[in-house]
Parts: sequence; C-alpha cells; structure tokens
Amino acid sequence: MAAQPDYPDAAASDPAKLGWMVGSPPPADRILRFDDGSYFQFPAMRWSVSHFRQLMPTVNVSRGLGAPVALPRALRSDIDAVTFIPTGSDRPMTWQQSLPVNYTDGIVVLHRGKVIYERYFGVLKPDGQHAAMSVTKSFVGTLAAMLVAEGKLDAARRVADYVPELATSAFGSATVRQVMDMTTGIRFSEDYADPKAEVWAHAAAGNPLPKPADYSGPRTYYEFLETVQPEGKHGEAFGYRTANTDALGWVLARVTGRSVAQLLSERIWSRLGTEQDAYMSVDSIGTPFAGGGLNLGLRDMARFGEMVRNGGVFHGQRVLPAAAVADIRRGGDPAAFAKAGYTQLPGWSYANMWWVTNNDHGAFAARGVHGQTIYVDPKAEMVIARFASHPVAANAASDATSLPAYHALALHLMQRSKAAAR
Amino acid sequence: MAAQPDYPDAAASDPAKLGWMVGSPPPADRILRFDDGSYFQFPAMRWSVSHFRQLMPTVNVSRGLGAPVALPRALRSDIDAVTFIPTGSDRPMTWQQSLPVNYTDGIVVLHRGKVIYERYFGVLKPDGQHAAMSVTKSFVGTLAAMLVAEGKLDAARRVADYVPELATSAFGSATVRQVMDMTTGIRFSEDYADPKAEVWAHAAAGNPLPKPADYSGPRTYYEFLETVQPEGKHGEAFGYRTANTDALGWVLARVTGRSVAQLLSERIWSRLGTEQDAYMSVDSIGTPFAGGGLNLGLRDMARFGEMVRNGGVFHGQRVLPAAAVADIRRGGDPAAFAKAGYTQLPGWSYANMWWVTNNDHGAFAARGVHGQTIYVDPKAEMVIARFASHPVAANAASDATSLPAYHALALHLMQRSKAAAR
Repeated sequence: MAAQPDYPDAAASDPAKLGWMVGSPPPADRILRFDDGSYFQFPAMRWSVSHFRQLMPTVNVSRGLGAPVALPRALRSDIDAVTFIPTGSDRPMTWQQSLPVNYTDGIVVLHRGKVIYERYFGVLKPDGQHAAMSVTKSFVGTLAAMLVAEGKLDAARRVADYVPELATSAFGSATVRQVMDMTTGIRFSEDYADPKAEVWAHAAAGNPLPKPADYSGPRTYYEFLETVQPEGKHGEAFGYRTANTDALGWVLARVTGRSVAQLLSERIWSRLGTEQDAYMSVDSIGTPFAGGGLNLGLRDMARFGEMVRNGGVFHGQRVLPAAAVADIRRGGDPAAFAKAGYTQLPGWSYANMWWVTNNDHGAFAARGVHGQTIYVDPKAEMVIARFASHPVAANAASDATSLPAYHALALHLMQRSKAAAR
Repeated sequence: MAAQPDYPDAAASDPAKLGWMVGSPPPADRILRFDDGSYFQFPAMRWSVSHFRQLMPTVNVSRGLGAPVALPRALRSDIDAVTFIPTGSDRPMTWQQSLPVNYTDGIVVLHRGKVIYERYFGVLKPDGQHAAMSVTKSFVGTLAAMLVAEGKLDAARRVADYVPELATSAFGSATVRQVMDMTTGIRFSEDYADPKAEVWAHAAAGNPLPKPADYSGPRTYYEFLETVQPEGKHGEAFGYRTANTDALGWVLARVTGRSVAQLLSERIWSRLGTEQDAYMSVDSIGTPFAGGGLNLGLRDMARFGEMVRNGGVFHGQRVLPAAAVADIRRGGDPAAFAKAGYTQLPGWSYANMWWVTNNDHGAFAARGVHGQTIYVDPKAEMVIARFASHPVAANAASDATSLPAYHALALHLMQRSKAAAR
C-alpha cells in the first residue's frame, strides 16, 4: 500500500532529476517519443503527463482573452501534519508523507473557496498543464448534465436517435442516461494486461499517427464506436468503460454542432476566470478524446471543482444550472455500482461521469488513472485538485493513501472551523 | 499582381465557407491530415495556418499567469478608404480592397500604441493562434540581439565555439553575427520547386512523424544542421536561408540552457501583457522549429512590434536593451542585400533576422511566407501585424498590394496627425 516494491519511489523517479528532454539535444537515453511508446513507460511517464502536447497533436480549449480571476489565498501551515490511517494499514501517516507515496505531481486544496494549500513536485509548475486522464470524463458528463438541465438533450432518448451511425453498435439501443451513468451493456475490456482487450483497439483507432500499412481496424474514435458489441443488458450494472464517454462526446457534438473542446471552452472554461487555456488530444480527424484527452492547469482544475461545489455558481455568475449540479451530487444506483466490485469504494455510485461516495459528507469526485482527481467535500466546504504520476494506472493503488487523507483533512477543517466559531 | 489567375480568390477559398474539419465526423473531402500533406494544399492551407497544433506536436510558449494588459483602442473609420498604387500597376486600390487580394486572414494597425484598425477573415478569430512562418525568425533574432547587448553572447565568435557539433559543417567557421544576418556561405536552396533542394531535407529531418523504414537522412533539425555544406564565402552576400535561424536557435540553447520556446517565454512573451500563450512546432526530439515554427495571436504579435517600435520598452517596462533595438533598426549592408536580387525590395537590408527598408521612415519588418508580417514605421509611429494565407509562398506575390498600402497608410496617419496638431 505504501511503497511500490517494483517501482522506484517518488524521489528516485523524479522527472526533474532524471532530466527527460533536457539539453540541445537531450542525451539519447533521455529522449522520449510518442511513436515507440517510450513516453509512457515508468518513470519517463512522469515527464510526459506534463508534456502531452509535445508528443502529439492537440486542440486548444480557449479561456478567452479576459483577465483571470485570482483564487483568494489563505495558506495554512497546519495541513502537512494532518494524520490519517491508510486503508489496510494500522500505522498512521501524515498528509505530507502521503504526497510522495502516491507520486503526487501537484495538489491544491480550497476551503470555502480559498487556496489553503498548494504544492508542486517534479516538472509540474503553476503555469504548466497536466493530463487529467479520466477526470476528462467528468467534464464531459458535466456538459451533458448541463444540456439535459437546459432541455437541449433528452437523457431518455436512445443514442441512435442522436447518432444514427451508432444504430447497429451496442450503443444504439442504450439511452443517453445509460451512457452518462456507464450502465450500458457493451463489450469493452479495459484490462491493459490483455492484448485482445477492446481498450487497445480503441487506442489504435484514436492514435493520430499514420496507421501501419497492414492495419485494417477502425481509424478514428467514431469508427471504433460503431464496432462496439453488446454484452449484458443496458441499465443493470455500472461498468467503467471509456468508450461510453466517447459515445457521449459524439452525442454532444451532434446536439450542439460543436466539438467537446469547443463546447467546454464556450460553456465552462471561458466562464471560470481560468488562468490558462486547457487542451485536448485529438485523433487523426481532429476529434477530441472525450474519454481522457484533457490537459489543464492545477489551479484551473480546482476552479472547476469549486464551481460545482458552489452549486454551479462561480464569482457570482451561474455557470451550471442548479439542476445539473443536483443531479451530479445525487449520484447513481449504489446497487448497480456494487456489481463492478470496487472493494475500496464501498457504497459509492457513479452518474453523469462523476464518482459519488455517498458518505455523510456528500463527497464526490472526478478520477483519472495514475492518481488524477477532483475531490469535492460539500460538508467540509473543501475542494481538492490533484495531479499525479503513480506507476500503477488503477486508482486502487493510490486510493489507500489519498481517500482517507482527504477525509481526515475534511474533518480537520471542520473541527478548526467549529473551534473558531465558538 | 492583383488576382492570381491560377487560384480561387479570397472569397472562393474562404476556409470558413469551405468547412474544413467541421462536423462529427467532417465529410471525407473536408478532412485534412498532416501525414499526407493535404493540410498544406491550397485552399485547405487557409484553415491549417490557424490550426497547426491540431496537426502536429507543439510546445507551449507561456505568457505566464498574470492579467493581460489591454491595448488601448481608438478605432478609426477612415482607414479602409486609404488609397495606394500597387507596385507595377497604374490603377489605384483602396486599403479595404487590398485585404482580399492578398488573402489577409487578420490585420491590426497600431498608431502611437493604440489599436486604430482590426479585421479578421475566414477562420481566424481574436482568440486564435496563426502560424507566423518566418516571422518566427525575427523573434529568434531579437533574442540573439538581446543576449549580445547583454554581453551573454559574443557575435564575433565562431558558431563552433558555442556548438562544437557544427565544427565540420559550413556553419562552424561562420561567426554568430553572420548567422544572425544570414550572410553565411552555405549550400541551402529554398527552391520548393526543386525536389533536391536542401529545404526538403531540412523539412524531412524536422518532421516529427516516424521516419519511413528506408529513410537514411538526418532525423532532427540539429542532425540536419551538421550536414550543411559550404557554398561561397561567409560575410559577402545576404542569402535568405532558414537553416541559419535553426543554427542560431542551437547557439541560443547552448548559451542559455533553454530551448528557444522557453527563452521566448521567459524573456519576451511573459513581459508584454500578452493575451494568449504562443506555441511552436517541434521535431521528433522536442526541438522547437526556430526557423518558422511560431504560432501566436494577432494582437499579441502587434504587442511585440509595438515594444520594438518603442525602443524595447512596453508599458513602462524595459523588455529589450536599447542597444539591441538600435542594432535591429540599423539593419545590415544594403550592398550585401542587393546581391540576393529582391527586385521588389530596392535598397533594403537584413540583419538580426529583420528586414530593414532603409526608407526615409526608417521602416523595418518581420516577414513570413504566404504574407505574414510585422511592419514597423517609426516615423509614422505605426505598427502593422498581419496574418495571411496567400496561395503563393513567396512574399513577392503579396508585396505589390501590401508594402505600398502600408506606406500610404503611414503617410495618411502622419498627415492627419499634422492636421490635428495645427
């Protein structure tokens, strides 16, 4: 749970110390490439997650041209000493100790909208953009929830009504709601250890590089989605499958006439006083990777979380309809979620591409592989945004030292607030 | 000179009307790709120059996280009617008429630091980033002039003193000054019509895509530079050869320990109150294309020109040493320039990667293929920034309807100022 015996620890794998892509030219053994996969081997991956655009084509998510709205700051020195018991352990750990254990690249904590804690490690800087991985999905789910609340998207309609090309795929007969909640019955294995898993065909289809001469599979995300086969019944169980988000992205593009990147810019990114443009990776025909292609600044990610915590309002401006936020917080069916077997997430549910803890704080989260997260605790009035580059993709490897830490910090902030109120 | 008989005119080639890369997915005949070259065929190229990052890997040129400094605005309605005689013509043309004739994508005019005119066409918007092409060179030359003025770079030293890898190439024995002024004696043809021209080997080396299996040439910009052969003597004649700027970029990287993109961000881009990050294309090992890879917002390009016009000061802050600006304005040797045979640029010279008119206004310019320019007229206190997508790469095709227009506008502004002063 603590150290990963098979991998160098955070200090030994520090991408700044290892000097990837530094020099003119960099040393041969410090050059990372997209086409040979070297960019995503550990520990090189720790550099790449902050430099995706140097490796592949991307599309801008414009913040617009106005002035950023600064997040108020009230930095506190008591956070590092907050103590928690990692899941499955009997030895306490401090907040500060947890950060290298789960390979944190950057973390910011907002309490009542103010930055109370902020740290960067390795090659990530405040003016850098880090891969959000599947946190991307929560942005896309939020856009969908927004359009549903506005009456522009009918969640009860079938996907094929919006995207006729998906009529013969497993998605065609699913409702938009089932796609938003990932309760579709589709065959899509994300077992990266299995070379026949559909996730590899999905990645090959979305790869923007020219296809090999003998390649005969789908050549874009959309073409891949058309090939997805049914497995099980729609609406019965939660199954975390990235293809759902790409299908949702296609629906959103058809409903709005805009790509997910344009929609995100117009409806959210340009309305949060963000400091930086975000960007998304694209396939060979320019389709943004809705399932995981977003890259953004850490404080900007926190702004988004704070807006959702605030019921959809940011700096006095309504960004999301209240109904959309309420639906995100409500979450999905815990019984459907339980079937997916996430033993470290007991009682949780998933809806609108958000993870909902259903704990007594009403906490909910956006989660991406290798440790990316937005964690919102409404009761504690706390938002945490974290980027990481854990050697293990599955968040089960990060959760033991992050989820209890987040909850302990929430309790700490509430206690202090209570004490201050007395 | 006016219409290009072999190409559709500006209206017929309007990339917004043609709908490149619009749709989910776009129609097959509206999809543009980097790898098959379709992205740079006319008229598709008119879309691509505003979307390079969607086609290839790029590196960010951060503006930092502060608020942009707005350019003051004093829009004028009398500009469109300004009349001039296009070079080689006997019929007058208005400023407004000239814009479609030379396929303008966007143009902004500053007078005494205020925006007096601003137009966008096709797919370029104020919050978009357009390719600067060889205007990039003037940014790199400015960085070099800055380091020379600061005593960090010795323009009299040989290139091989800074980059030993270039000792056996034609660059090794040239001085940094000769590289900065493009008076090196190197074999580098930019005749795009000749498949054996070195410019093609240069482009192949810098192409970030995986090389074909049978490819045996240089694989990066740096490797290409090592192969450049001598032709003629250093210091005798101006010869516009892009490889000089890439060699200069290598020198700058060695002197500063930073890539050209980082250096540009730290020393210039973050100090102009820019509205947007800029970005540069990169080769397969992440080296920014110093000879032509910069993409940026139109108003931000104007900010840079205004800073140079102002003697290196912007919003009260010194960005460039006065000596660097003086050296840029001084220009090079007109006799050396004359040998290059630019019949439309009589009496001009070239130095520090800037074009100097040597006219009685002391005007000077940054110039990139297909019509990109920054035109600074100190006497008229005028700066013009223009993006374009002329079907003909060589600026000779654009100059007839742009250079006389710029000069006519300068005279118009001076006249009006004089009248107002009376």
